[in-house]
Amino acid sequence: MNACDIIYKKRQGKPLTEEEIRFFVDGYAKGDIPDYQASALMMAICCRDMDDAETAVLTDAMAHSGMISDLSRFGDVSVDKHSTGGVGDKTTLVVAPTVACLGAKIAKMSGRGLGHTGGTVDKLESIPGYRSELDADAFLRQVEEIGVAVIGQSEMFTPADKKLYALRDVTATVDSIPLIASSIMSKKLASGARSIVLDVKVGIGAFMKDEKSARQLAYRMVEIGKRHGRNMAALMTNMDAPLGNTVGNSLEMIEAIEILQGKRKGPVYDVAIKLIGQMASFALKIPVAEAQKRAIRAIESGSAFSKMKEWITAQGGDGRYLEDTSLFPVARACETICASEDGFIAQIDAVKIGMACMSLGAGRFKKGDVIDHTAGITLAKTVGNPVCKGEPLGSLFTDRPERLDAAKKMAIQAFCITERPPEKKPLIYKIIR
Amino acid sequence: MNACDIIYKKRQGKPLTEEEIRFFVDGYAKGDIPDYQASALMMAICCRDMDDAETAVLTDAMAHSGMISDLSRFGDVSVDKHSTGGVGDKTTLVVAPTVACLGAKIAKMSGRGLGHTGGTVDKLESIPGYRSELDADAFLRQVEEIGVAVIGQSEMFTPADKKLYALRDVTATVDSIPLIASSIMSKKLASGARSIVLDVKVGIGAFMKDEKSARQLAYRMVEIGKRHGRNMAALMTNMDAPLGNTVGNSLEMIEAIEILQGKRKGPVYDVAIKLIGQMASFALKIPVAEAQKRAIRAIESGSAFSKMKEWITAQGGDGRYLEDTSLFPVARACETICASEDGFIAQIDAVKIGMACMSLGAGRFKKGDVIDHTAGITLAKTVGNPVCKGEPLGSLFTDRPERLDAAKKMAIQAFCITERPPEKKPLIYKIIR
Repeated sequence: MNACDIIYKKRQGKPLTEEEIRFFVDGYAKGDIPDYQASALMMAICCRDMDDAETAVLTDAMAHSGMISDLSRFGDVSVDKHSTGGVGDKTTLVVAPTVACLGAKIAKMSGRGLGHTGGTVDKLESIPGYRSELDADAFLRQVEEIGVAVIGQSEMFTPADKKLYALRDVTATVDSIPLIASSIMSKKLASGARSIVLDVKVGIGAFMKDEKSARQLAYRMVEIGKRHGRNMAALMTNMDAPLGNTVGNSLEMIEAIEILQGKRKGPVYDVAIKLIGQMASFALKIPVAEAQKRAIRAIESGSAFSKMKEWITAQGGDGRYLEDTSLFPVARACETICASEDGFIAQIDAVKIGMACMSLGAGRFKKGDVIDHTAGITLAKTVGNPVCKGEPLGSLFTDRPERLDAAKKMAIQAFCITERPPEKKPLIYKIIR
Repeated sequence: MNACDIIYKKRQGKPLTEEEIRFFVDGYAKGDIPDYQASALMMAICCRDMDDAETAVLTDAMAHSGMISDLSRFGDVSVDKHSTGGVGDKTTLVVAPTVACLGAKIAKMSGRGLGHTGGTVDKLESIPGYRSELDADAFLRQVEEIGVAVIGQSEMFTPADKKLYALRDVTATVDSIPLIASSIMSKKLASGARSIVLDVKVGIGAFMKDEKSARQLAYRMVEIGKRHGRNMAALMTNMDAPLGNTVGNSLEMIEAIEILQGKRKGPVYDVAIKLIGQMASFALKIPVAEAQKRAIRAIESGSAFSKMKEWITAQGGDGRYLEDTSLFPVARACETICASEDGFIAQIDAVKIGMACMSLGAGRFKKGDVIDHTAGITLAKTVGNPVCKGEPLGSLFTDRPERLDAAKKMAIQAFCITERPPEKKPLIYKIIR
């Protein structure tokens, strides 16, 4: 078997065999196959596609390139979720403790923010003391004891995917359905949960700009998971505008806390309930509607919030911040942006808001950049709201006042105000199961 | 401008601008753009194609990545030829002196053999003393004085093409019409001749297996040359079976000498006359038929052979070998292969003969391998000939007798004998001008 023949076969649009895919992934992970051959294969896959069987094997090969979390001790109740990445998406912070509260076990590895999208681990680290690195034993023991643990992605998992993703990033081979699906699902398979619920974002601020490609990606990932014996569901949710009222790490943490305290509802709450419904229905073998009801009750009764405190403090976080969110430090500089005319909010461009937050210090231009947990934007309006000239649209927060002007410009550009109310778009497009 | 955006644009099937192509080729030649980005672009080109304008720019960018031969002193009479590579193709050895004899100037840079195909320089070096490396001054002075010089390709020419070709070789991106066309034509443009005649081989032993793809390649190359102001013609010639009766360096040299001595005719002679007809008609501004007549006369009169001697001795070759070909050393071991049944020769697979020759020592498995000039195969029969069981089909020559058995097996497999005579295929499919 040789790499060049495999590349040529894919270039001709022929399906690769299991042996060929494993040979290539293993060879690339070990360094036997050089970058220039891997990038040629990635481009051939972008141009010629891969079928479900090939994508499932590619996923499995990448999953098995590193450590695999063994969650078998939890039987059928281990669950996981994954969002394809958005702006203001803090659902994991709500979902994880609530689903644990219902009896599921969630041993979650989450990413950090990069570019205009945020990452759960960064949000959690806005709480002083929170440890996002636990060794495998401590991680699983915590899940066993309290039902939930959330840590950063370890370098030990899916090294082939990490190497391939870095290569794809610089060879224009990122946005390919089989490559995205296998990259995401390899991490999910390695994470070991029996049931996986995906949140595939659709819209301006998402990777998938249109419903059609999002649906293709969702079906492909569901299919991969099923082929590996996992219970699978996928939600397709709107990411034209940021999700909820805040973007930025401590700001989002506070929003999540307030949702679990029962003080807030809105789109974050709605999406979270739907996700929990799917996850808990798998774990507890109950209908989705029943699972959703239990989720709502867990939040209303305060038991989900208690679980959150239990979880955060178990990982070293200072629990007082949850009880009193005024303890979170506030950024040195703040500025409000206002409407320049009367009308209706027709759009809040999630990418522009994400970019503005990044320039305020909330995100990373490149891996390893240090972030400012207090930086971000709060939104006073959401899409569809009427607005009068001069009325506040939102506020910008940063410890780097010199960045305010540029960020303000970007944030204002994100808002599109029209005379008539915009057509209403669904928050949840579709649920695939 | 950035490499990733250019790759992505081509991946989407969009035509690249002149600036984008030059940016990429220059960047790759200088080492600013890494192999993995270049291979991704090459694969995108293989999958999405390039139009004539893009291919012409790519060619020009590669031609200008290194030295350019300035043949302006020769005015309109400078000519060049190129064959896309075959087995037993010794036409350059016949064409070069004959066309010079008619008054054209041919300053030719030729390749070495690689894989199953031979190279003109290797054939010339079977004459003791022949120098295939001349400095630019000596090279052009010789052309000025006697009308012809043939040297090896210098590293100073088209470095971008050399680097890219080596990369394509290991990334399954070799057989793409725009990439082959630009690779060949960049070398031809850099060689500087006013008129270029191409010999595009079609068939089992050629790069282009079918007429359609050969025609596409031929038209593409003719178009590129015309866009750069060159007189262009292309012959499409048969390469199912080896061309002529010999394969191997000194064996082919002897065949060429005998053609110029008027002792032999056959397909090599026929193709050579057609090529010279095109080349001389451009250089002398006369009709092709008239040019062919002059070529035939030059060979018949012995003046083409005299020009050959003048050329070979000018480059240090021992002229006595031309007068008396029995001076060429003969391989230590020789073995004849015979027909296993009565019938007609339906096929002599050029690749198998080429591979057999390579294993006898006539070719290179990889760049830099040392070759044995005496090794090779002579063919006693050609396609269409009747044959009786036991009758000799050809002879194998080598200085490495341990290689004989395997080579013999391969050579025998090359012959296909059928009960009825095969359908006759043309030697020359088409002439494009």
